[in-house]
Amino acid sequence: MRLRILITGGTFDKEYNELTGALFFRNSHVPEMLRLGRCRLDIEIETVTMIDSLDMTAEDRAKVVARCRSSPESSIVITHGTDTMVETARAIAAAGLADKTIVLTGAMIPYAFGSSDGLFNLGSAVSFAQVLPPGVYVAMNGMHFRWDRCRKNRESGHFELSTE
Amino acid sequence: MRLRILITGGTFDKEYNELTGALFFRNSHVPEMLRLGRCRLDIEIETVTMIDSLDMTAEDRAKVVARCRSSPESSIVITHGTDTMVETARAIAAAGLADKTIVLTGAMIPYAFGSSDGLFNLGSAVSFAQVLPPGVYVAMNGMHFRWDRCRKNRESGHFELSTE
Amino acid sequence: MRLRILITGGTFDKEYNELTGALFFRNSHVPEMLRLGRCRLDIEIETVTMIDSLDMTAEDRAKVVARCRSSPESSIVITHGTDTMVETARAIAAAGLADKTIVLTGAMIPYAFGSSDGLFNLGSAVSFAQVLPPGVYVAMNGMHFRWDRCRKNRESGHFELSTE
Amino acid sequence: MRLRILITGGTFDKEYNELTGALFFRNSHVPEMLRLGRCRLDIEIETVTMIDSLDMTAEDRAKVVARCRSSPESSIVITHGTDTMVETARAIAAAGLADKTIVLTGAMIPYAFGSSDGLFNLGSAVSFAQVLPPGVYVAMNGMHFRWDRCRKNRESGHFELSTE
Repeated sequence: MRLRILITGGTFDKEYNELTGALFFRNSHVPEMLRLGRCRLDIEIETVTMIDSLDMTAEDRAKVVARCRSSPESSIVITHGTDTMVETARAIAAAGLADKTIVLTGAMIPYAFGSSDGLFNLGSAVSFAQVLPPGVYVAMNGMHFRWDRCRKNRESGHFELSTE
Repeated sequence: MRLRILITGGTFDKEYNELTGALFFRNSHVPEMLRLGRCRLDIEIETVTMIDSLDMTAEDRAKVVARCRSSPESSIVITHGTDTMVETARAIAAAGLADKTIVLTGAMIPYAFGSSDGLFNLGSAVSFAQVLPPGVYVAMNGMHFRWDRCRKNRESGHFELSTE
Repeated sequence: MRLRILITGGTFDKEYNELTGALFFRNSHVPEMLRLGRCRLDIEIETVTMIDSLDMTAEDRAKVVARCRSSPESSIVITHGTDTMVETARAIAAAGLADKTIVLTGAMIPYAFGSSDGLFNLGSAVSFAQVLPPGVYVAMNGMHFRWDRCRKNRESGHFELSTE
Repeated sequence: MRLRILITGGTFDKEYNELTGALFFRNSHVPEMLRLGRCRLDIEIETVTMIDSLDMTAEDRAKVVARCRSSPESSIVITHGTDTMVETARAIAAAGLADKTIVLTGAMIPYAFGSSDGLFNLGSAVSFAQVLPPGVYVAMNGMHFRWDRCRKNRESGHFELSTE
């Protein structure tokens, strides 16, 4: 099975600039993470943006949607900042890509910082993307949610079922 | 959804004894790994054995099968050494637990050694266990295999489809 | 030999707040680092401030000087942000504590972020503090400098001999 | 100041063979550790042997002594297994290299395993080697010992003063 990973940035890929003390983006850690996980799936990796999800504009989201649409693979994982992950999921769902399984995931701690949840989440997301029926999902905390049934709890940092 | 994790040992849980220089087992790292992954599933963890899978006897396998049978949860993940993972999977399959989804996983590098594939595999296994139909599976390398369709390639260390 | 470690904060002890994405200070990692290094020295640890060295005021520096003066131990290590480390060293030297060996050290990457130089620098600083003659020193990059003979090169992040 | 590091193997440099589950030696981690520590000393690195110190023969020790003698640098650090570190120190001391400061160090946990004391010890050893008077020393646990005044306590794994 062939899978596509779209990279958008987010905490997942943040690094520490030792000269300025600020966090920034350079290259994605996803290829290194897949190597560490000895992942043997046939995966195409594509970087769409490399930004904090709070900085993501409608235009950026349109780009993500376009890449989902043009992807020849029907299983897609998107790495994304957690703050606006659900918003991007909504934009993708609105595009009506009825034959694709699209799973958004992220991390609470940058992978480069050692004690990250990123590797667990990536293992989870690529697995859900292979077996869930077509639809747009969020995979966080070992769970999967339909995009319109979840929200990030900003006090705890966890994703949970939304009752709206 | 409630999930059960049965721990049997394997590379996953090996540690380095700094006084003797030998590898050994102490407590499982699975609870710490679930915390690191910010896993929010309702999980019951049970240690069945704490051994190298090359040392696993028919009796040990019978114990694993018994725990699968008695588990009230129908989604089960088993952490296991990779060398005889398929053999244990076969023993479980032979028990005919038709209503349960059982996923075996492991690691090539001990979790305690820092650059392990264990966290990726655990994220993958708990995800597959939630969504695959009943059956006995191996989840390694980001993939899932039916127990009777895979083998460990001992040259590469990867799991692959078997054609037998 | 008895040694005192004065903690002031700095990059050494920064952590990542996973809810806000900001860096902050909580407890010092120095005790954990000494455990990891299996350090067997008789060490008294004292937290003076827990701040970024760019935020350090003359009052904070006076506090550090006072703790150096009142320390019964004549070998003192100070963990400090690198940006104003030399400035604090100057303030201590001005106090004329002629019988004490005082070594300032820090890190370019937070210890909590995994790939830090902090552990190397701490091993270096406690060693220099035991054997250098009384005076005020900076220990960074495996080297030691008299406080009035070094500066931080802000382009490279390294400490180097100053020719002023 | 120019320094030479002689590498002999030991726990410091052990790695985990993921196909066999055994520990083995490949290349030394010392260069990577010096980079991580942002070490700026002028250091010449030389691999003498790559073995467990329990396997070190009189011939291996003679090789180490010869490299100490031929070293143009008068400050030398030797990475070495802890089990026979003192024995090698004795052989070097017997060679009577009166103008050189030679510091042996090691680790209780392999550097590759993540939670190693190796980086702390390396920072300590290169510091002691720069400032101690000529002689043969062991640097472990943040301390330094004259070669004829210490022993490894095999129960605790610590180095301590010997009273013989």
